[in-house]
Amino acid sequence: MRWRMQPSGIITLTTDFGLADSYVGIMKGVILGIAPQATIVDITHQIAPQDIHQAAYIVQTFGAFFPPGTVHVVVVDPGVGSKRRRIILTTPVAAYVAPDNGVLTYVWREAMARWGTEKCAVYNLTESRYWLPHVSSTFHGRDVFAPVAAHLTLGVPPAEFGEQCEEIVEAMLEQPSRGRQGELVGRIIHIDHFGNCITNITLKHLKEAGIGERMAAQLIGQRIEGLYRTYSDVPIGALVALIGSSDHLEIAVRNGNAAQTLGAGIGDIVRVFPFTHDAP
Amino acid sequence: MRWRMQPSGIITLTTDFGLADSYVGIMKGVILGIAPQATIVDITHQIAPQDIHQAAYIVQTFGAFFPPGTVHVVVVDPGVGSKRRRIILTTPVAAYVAPDNGVLTYVWREAMARWGTEKCAVYNLTESRYWLPHVSSTFHGRDVFAPVAAHLTLGVPPAEFGEQCEEIVEAMLEQPSRGRQGELVGRIIHIDHFGNCITNITLKHLKEAGIGERMAAQLIGQRIEGLYRTYSDVPIGALVALIGSSDHLEIAVRNGNAAQTLGAGIGDIVRVFPFTHDAP
Amino acid sequence: MRWRMQPSGIITLTTDFGLADSYVGIMKGVILGIAPQATIVDITHQIAPQDIHQAAYIVQTFGAFFPPGTVHVVVVDPGVGSKRRRIILTTPVAAYVAPDNGVLTYVWREAMARWGTEKCAVYNLTESRYWLPHVSSTFHGRDVFAPVAAHLTLGVPPAEFGEQCEEIVEAMLEQPSRGRQGELVGRIIHIDHFGNCITNITLKHLKEAGIGERMAAQLIGQRIEGLYRTYSDVPIGALVALIGSSDHLEIAVRNGNAAQTLGAGIGDIVRVFPFTHDAP
Repeated sequence: MRWRMQPSGIITLTTDFGLADSYVGIMKGVILGIAPQATIVDITHQIAPQDIHQAAYIVQTFGAFFPPGTVHVVVVDPGVGSKRRRIILTTPVAAYVAPDNGVLTYVWREAMARWGTEKCAVYNLTESRYWLPHVSSTFHGRDVFAPVAAHLTLGVPPAEFGEQCEEIVEAMLEQPSRGRQGELVGRIIHIDHFGNCITNITLKHLKEAGIGERMAAQLIGQRIEGLYRTYSDVPIGALVALIGSSDHLEIAVRNGNAAQTLGAGIGDIVRVFPFTHDAP
Repeated sequence: MRWRMQPSGIITLTTDFGLADSYVGIMKGVILGIAPQATIVDITHQIAPQDIHQAAYIVQTFGAFFPPGTVHVVVVDPGVGSKRRRIILTTPVAAYVAPDNGVLTYVWREAMARWGTEKCAVYNLTESRYWLPHVSSTFHGRDVFAPVAAHLTLGVPPAEFGEQCEEIVEAMLEQPSRGRQGELVGRIIHIDHFGNCITNITLKHLKEAGIGERMAAQLIGQRIEGLYRTYSDVPIGALVALIGSSDHLEIAVRNGNAAQTLGAGIGDIVRVFPFTHDAP
Repeated sequence: MRWRMQPSGIITLTTDFGLADSYVGIMKGVILGIAPQATIVDITHQIAPQDIHQAAYIVQTFGAFFPPGTVHVVVVDPGVGSKRRRIILTTPVAAYVAPDNGVLTYVWREAMARWGTEKCAVYNLTESRYWLPHVSSTFHGRDVFAPVAAHLTLGVPPAEFGEQCEEIVEAMLEQPSRGRQGELVGRIIHIDHFGNCITNITLKHLKEAGIGERMAAQLIGQRIEGLYRTYSDVPIGALVALIGSSDHLEIAVRNGNAAQTLGAGIGDIVRVFPFTHDAP
C-alpha cells in the first residue's frame, strides 16, 4: 500500500566490511543471482567497524541524489545473529534495508518530519522465503539483506517480507543545543577524507537560531570567524567555516586537513556564536 | 565439451593491484570494449602484493554465491612476463582465468573433490587471437586475462583459447594435521577487515575429528573455550571461536579486533582440542 | 561538429574523494538519475587531495583502453566554487569533463600532438540547464560534472554545454631534459601500489635520445644497469629498470617495493645514461 514506486533497479550498499575481503563481492553475487539486471552502487564500505553513529550520518547524505525507487542496503551489524530485528523502511522515494539498530536514525527522523507515518512504513523481515536457503549466524548481509534487496528491486511489495511495525530503534544521536551565551552547541559527527570536520549543526539549525554570515565558531580553543561560501574564499592554509554539500556546518582548511591541523576528532564540541564580536 | 554453461555475463576481478592506480580501471575498459554488456564485480584488489597464498584463500570464498556461468579473473602474478602458464580452469558452474602459479589451489582441490576430472578442465592460454594485439611484459591482466575473460563471457568455448592440460600448479598450502594429544593443528590463513583470525580448519575437519561445541582452541598462549554460533553469544570484548561465513573456524573478539588483541598474524598455529578439559 | 562519435555509454571517474565518504556514490546517483543505462567505471578515487600533477599523470594512462565514445570525468578541484572554468575536452575518441586547472595537461598535449586543433575542441561549461537545479559552492562533482557527463553520454553534442574556447590551462609539468654528460634527466612522477617508481621519461624520449638496452639509470645514489623487459628478468629483490605498461620508464624491485627500498619519492631526479660504462 505504501511503496507503490516503480523500482529504479538500483541498489546501494553501505557497510563496515572494508575492501580487503570478499564480503562485498559475495553480496553482489547474491543480488545478481536473484536480480541480474540490478545496478549496484557502492556508497562506502569503510564505516568504522560496528560504528552505528557514523553509519547513521553517512546514510542520510545520499538518498536525495538517487532516482525514486532505489533500494539502499546498510550493513553495520554488531548484533548479527542476535535477536535484533532486521527491517525495511519505506518512504515515498526509497526503501532502506538494514538491521534495526539505529543506523537508520537520521533517515527515519527526516522521513517522519517530511512525510509522517502516513506515507512511510517499517516492516520486520520475518519471511524466510526471501532469504538464502541457509542463513548463517555471522553474515546476514549475504543471507538476508542482499536477497531481500534483490527481491524488492524486482518489485516484490515490502509487506510481503514481514509484518508492519510502528517504529524503529533510534540511536541516541544528539541534536545541537543552546549554550549559556545563546550560542549553538553541536559536535563533530564525521571527518571526511579531506579532514573536513562535519558537525551535527545544519543550515536549518543556523537559520532557526538567526545565525548568519557574521558568526564565529569555536572548536578546540580555536576561533573561526565568518561563514563562507567555499574553501577558496580564504587564503591557502586558513581555517574556514562553511555549509558543506550535505547542508551541515563544517570546519575546513583550504587545501589542507582541518582535523589534523586542529587535532580534532569525532565527538568534539563546536560552539557557534551569532556575531563575531560575541565570541569570547 | 566441458563448459556448456550459458555465460551469466558476470566477470569478477581479484587482484593485488590496489585502488590508487588506473590498473583495475584499464582492465575494465578492455573488458567492456570486447563485451559491452558484461557486468563486472570487484571482489578485492587488496591482496597483499604477490601473495599467492592469500589469493588462494580469498578465491575459494565467493564462487558459490555467483550465478552459474560466471567468469572469475585472478591476477596476482609475480611471474608476469616469465614462462609461467596462463590458464582457464572450468568447473560445471564457473570458469577461472589466472596465472598458473597456485592462486587456484583451493578452488582446484574443491573442484576435484566435488566433480573430479571428468567434469572440470584446464586450458593453457596460447591462442593470441583472444589477447590484445600488443602484449606487454608487465601487465597481462590488461593484455591477456581481461580480453580472455571478455571472450569467455561472450560464449567462446574454453577449448578455443589453447590446449587442454592435465593439472595446475598447486601452492604448498598446508592442511590441518593431528597433534600429539589428538588435537587438530591448523594455522591462521587470513585476517579479515574486522581482525577476525580465519584458520585453515573447516567445519568438515572438525566433524571428521569428532570435535563439537565443547572444544577449546589454543592460539598464542590464549585458551578460548567453546564453539559458539555468533559474535554476540559472548560478552563485548571477549574472545570467541566460531564457524565463520565461509565454513572456516575463526577466532574473533566481539565488537573488537582479535588479531590486534592477540598480536596474531597469518601463519600462527591454532590447536583445537575436542573437549574443553583436555586443553592444557 | 567535432565529437561525432557515438557515445559508448561508459563514464569513468577519477577523483581525490577517497572511499570513506558518500561523495563518489552521490555522483553515481546523479549520473544514473539522468542516464539510467550508463556503465560507470571507477578509475581511482585516491588521487592525493588536491594533487593536480598526480591526477594529470593518471588521467593519461587509461583513455586508450576504453571504447571510443567514452566520457572521462576528473574531479580534483581545489578551486571549487572559485572562478576557474569547468570544461569539456573532446578528441576523436573520447570526451573529458574536468575543472580547467591542469588535470588534463598530458591528455591535452597528446591530443594536440596526435590530432591537432582541427579534430579536438574545448568547451567552457556555462549552460546551467545541464547542471543540477541547485549548484553548491563545494561539490561541483555532484552538481555540474556528473550531470554534464550523463547528458554527454545520452548524446547531447558538446557545443550545447557552452562556448568553445581555444585552449586549456596547463599545469607546469616538466619534460625530461638533457644533462651535462648527454644523459636524459627526468623525475619520478608517480609511485604505484607496488612501489614502482614511474618517471616522466617515456619510451619515445629514450628512442629520440638513442638510448637502448645497455643504458644505466641513476636514482638517489643508486646505479641500475640495463633496461629489461620485465620484473622476473632479474633476481628476486634486485632493482630493475624497465618500460612499464604505460610506456614510461620505471624503476622497480622484483617482488619488492622500490620506493621503500630506495627511499624514493615523487619529484626525485632520475638520470639515464646511454651506455652502462658512461655512468659515473
